[in-house]
Amino acid sequence: MTDTGPCFYCPDLPEAGEKADLAEEETHHASAARRIRVGDTIGLIDGAGTRAAAVVEVVARRRLRFTVQERFLVPRPQPSVVVASAIPKGERFRVLIDMLSQVGVVGVMPLVCERGAAKPRSSAVERWQRIAIEACKQSRNPHVPVIHAPCSVTDSLATVPANGTVVFADVDGRPAADGLPESGDLFLYVGPEGGFSDAEKNLLHDRGARALNLGANILRVETAAVAAAVRCLMP
Amino acid sequence: MTDTGPCFYCPDLPEAGEKADLAEEETHHASAARRIRVGDTIGLIDGAGTRAAAVVEVVARRRLRFTVQERFLVPRPQPSVVVASAIPKGERFRVLIDMLSQVGVVGVMPLVCERGAAKPRSSAVERWQRIAIEACKQSRNPHVPVIHAPCSVTDSLATVPANGTVVFADVDGRPAADGLPESGDLFLYVGPEGGFSDAEKNLLHDRGARALNLGANILRVETAAVAAAVRCLMP
Repeated sequence: MTDTGPCFYCPDLPEAGEKADLAEEETHHASAARRIRVGDTIGLIDGAGTRAAAVVEVVARRRLRFTVQERFLVPRPQPSVVVASAIPKGERFRVLIDMLSQVGVVGVMPLVCERGAAKPRSSAVERWQRIAIEACKQSRNPHVPVIHAPCSVTDSLATVPANGTVVFADVDGRPAADGLPESGDLFLYVGPEGGFSDAEKNLLHDRGARALNLGANILRVETAAVAAAVRCLMP
Repeated sequence: MTDTGPCFYCPDLPEAGEKADLAEEETHHASAARRIRVGDTIGLIDGAGTRAAAVVEVVARRRLRFTVQERFLVPRPQPSVVVASAIPKGERFRVLIDMLSQVGVVGVMPLVCERGAAKPRSSAVERWQRIAIEACKQSRNPHVPVIHAPCSVTDSLATVPANGTVVFADVDGRPAADGLPESGDLFLYVGPEGGFSDAEKNLLHDRGARALNLGANILRVETAAVAAAVRCLMP
């Protein structure tokens, strides 16, 4: 496909041959930061698995109109990985979302843990979702992960389907080479710096969670999350 | 081992039963930021593979004296991984060094690539080395990676021993599951956002480098470096 130019996010991607406008926020980014001009070819992702190449027809102050040339559905990554992670402070949760979006997880659940930091404001979710979209544009990943509302281990486990596999990063776990599912729904749990509480560990054990070893060093939350996702998504 | 308290860097770690002082920079960190008191147990790493537990004997403004209680040599990680990576802008090379230090690489070579950014100042290396030490303290990894001076692909390949394996991240590569060495010296090359130039690729091919695939998405430099290292170091 010829979408080697800059890539933009367009959740309502029309069929090939049809025209549409970029959303205003994306338009500003396209015209000001990326200096897109009429006649340029751009890449598009819809966030739900479709990529497209389009030709720019109109560039105005608040409007960028394009014609879709070709589009195709990228298969959903296998397994389908959701990372349920404690929320590290400051910049580090943003790094986690950025990297996991590139690597190809389908969801991130910010976990409010007993030993973790305070519950973030609900406005944080929108900001985090924007980071995921930006990372996916950069890496041309049309499957933008869903950033869920912060929740407890109990509440997050309630969302795991009956046939889903639950894995948690743990120094006493087995290495990934001992076998991880290659398809289906995989939920990766990463605890806070102080670790999951006994109550939280019991919840994971009761759900049949498998402990995954990520080496001898104590990894920071975001490093553990990225390492676990890489180990599950990259054969 | 009982070194569950805060961990400090002490390159000249004495034998068990002997006393020593922390370096001044570490002393300040210990007394001001970590509030270490006489009688506390602290962890120590020497950067060359030894971990120790020690009891604090004296805490003064510029001095922290301790007695080593026990010490042991942590086996060097296998394989021995050096990441030779293009230098992403701003914060992102710091994230790369931080995460690779936790994951357990033994060296990072900042690559000055044809399509990369300008050569960094030599003072940057010292700053990067400090980031590696801090990350190792945090993760209790006594094998602090050496941050080398920035160099070209040619110069970095000249440092690879004859029996070393060279791997580079590439979308056309084979997955890690197709076989990577489990021991020996492994050099992982990660190119800039624009990719290695043809000349640089030829140098890698001439050295017998194997291309490693890291999935369908275009990864940022730091994400590719961490993913490749995880894939080589975590079985």
